[in-house]
Amino acid sequence: MPSLSPYDRRLDYSYAPGIFPSMEAVKKAPELVRRLLVHSEAGASEGVTALTELCRARNIRVETADKALSRLSGKGNCYAAAVFEKRQASLDANAAHIVLHHPSDAGNLGTILRAALGFGFMDIALIGPCTDVFHPHVVRSSMGALFSLRVREYGDFEAYRADFPGHAAYPFMLDGSVTLEEALKTPPCGPYCLIFGNEGAGLPPEFSRVGTPVRIEHSHEIDSLNLSIAASIGMYRFCAECAE
Amino acid sequence: MPSLSPYDRRLDYSYAPGIFPSMEAVKKAPELVRRLLVHSEAGASEGVTALTELCRARNIRVETADKALSRLSGKGNCYAAAVFEKRQASLDANAAHIVLHHPSDAGNLGTILRAALGFGFMDIALIGPCTDVFHPHVVRSSMGALFSLRVREYGDFEAYRADFPGHAAYPFMLDGSVTLEEALKTPPCGPYCLIFGNEGAGLPPEFSRVGTPVRIEHSHEIDSLNLSIAASIGMYRFCAECAE
Repeated sequence: MPSLSPYDRRLDYSYAPGIFPSMEAVKKAPELVRRLLVHSEAGASEGVTALTELCRARNIRVETADKALSRLSGKGNCYAAAVFEKRQASLDANAAHIVLHHPSDAGNLGTILRAALGFGFMDIALIGPCTDVFHPHVVRSSMGALFSLRVREYGDFEAYRADFPGHAAYPFMLDGSVTLEEALKTPPCGPYCLIFGNEGAGLPPEFSRVGTPVRIEHSHEIDSLNLSIAASIGMYRFCAECAE
Repeated sequence: MPSLSPYDRRLDYSYAPGIFPSMEAVKKAPELVRRLLVHSEAGASEGVTALTELCRARNIRVETADKALSRLSGKGNCYAAAVFEKRQASLDANAAHIVLHHPSDAGNLGTILRAALGFGFMDIALIGPCTDVFHPHVVRSSMGALFSLRVREYGDFEAYRADFPGHAAYPFMLDGSVTLEEALKTPPCGPYCLIFGNEGAGLPPEFSRVGTPVRIEHSHEIDSLNLSIAASIGMYRFCAECAE
């Protein structure tokens, strides 16, 4: 591996900044981890010690890289970062999917990945163009959840749908024809997908013809809920009602 | 009013950066708005035109202030900002309350305020020390929801409790004794409060003796949900089940 570059979407590797996200990478996806970077001042940190021990046990190279870590951390401290290989996963055809259409905010995307893992949604389809799911900021805000999930990017929704034509689809739309609670009165009996639109624009109107368009009831005092909030409420409710 | 200072917690006024948050300030809390700042290049913007017309109708002074707006906007553009007076509200003793204990992240706090307004929770108690609810970043991430809500800061939880001893209390804790769905099987029949802890630390253990400690079920694959996600799920569910 050549010397480390500042993060760029075109690179075939990225960084998991921070002890917790790096630990998740090394525990959940060791086959993707190329090396662990540690800061020369991290010697006494318990977290870094545990992390380096785990890397040694898994034959992952550990090296001091103060400059690369400062570049990653921005204003905060960053004592460790796993360097990991980017890889597209295959989604499980029998599982429920979360489909994110043109998500544009890195923090929102990370928060959604973390909540998806929490509610047992392991398969995530991203419909491009979208924010870079491998960006260190997404990895950090997902708290490393990325390494436990199967994530695949599609060029458009049709490409996703061609792979999984049988999933019962629930597009979440401000003018969805049924409320979330109504939709859950007859939960899907097979695999399904929950579809969420872009932060600013929501889903395009044609999604109202895809499956069962769902709305989350809220007052007219706000225009819409934050995307990560809407997605998490949808996942929480489907998780609670559709558990086998 | 003297010349404008960079934002500081000790000032008795703050800024609502952006057209949408400023519009909310002028519409929902005109009595607090001291003036509207507009950028000299904003002339053609429809939003700014609507905003300045509304200000003129309400006798709110409009002035060009490019320097103050650049200072507020950071990297993005900011064409308008309402300058508003900070004021502590009185909470409605008959309404449900959201209590946030030591919230420390401005983005989370803004997102929670927006969701609270969406789910009809108009009364917010903040237990200090906490992030500054009047900070322009909070105002922006609340999308101006701050101006529709009643928000009051308390030095500690006991001070809040002394004001509202009768509210049925639901502290949200990772080890809460009942799940959210169980708690909702017997919804509170009078006013209640939902209590959420700090992003990193959660609520201190002694809150387990306050009312009914609730947990949001999620897998052990994650440590916890993001605070704004947990608070929004709690608000959504109580809103759906406790509507009169």
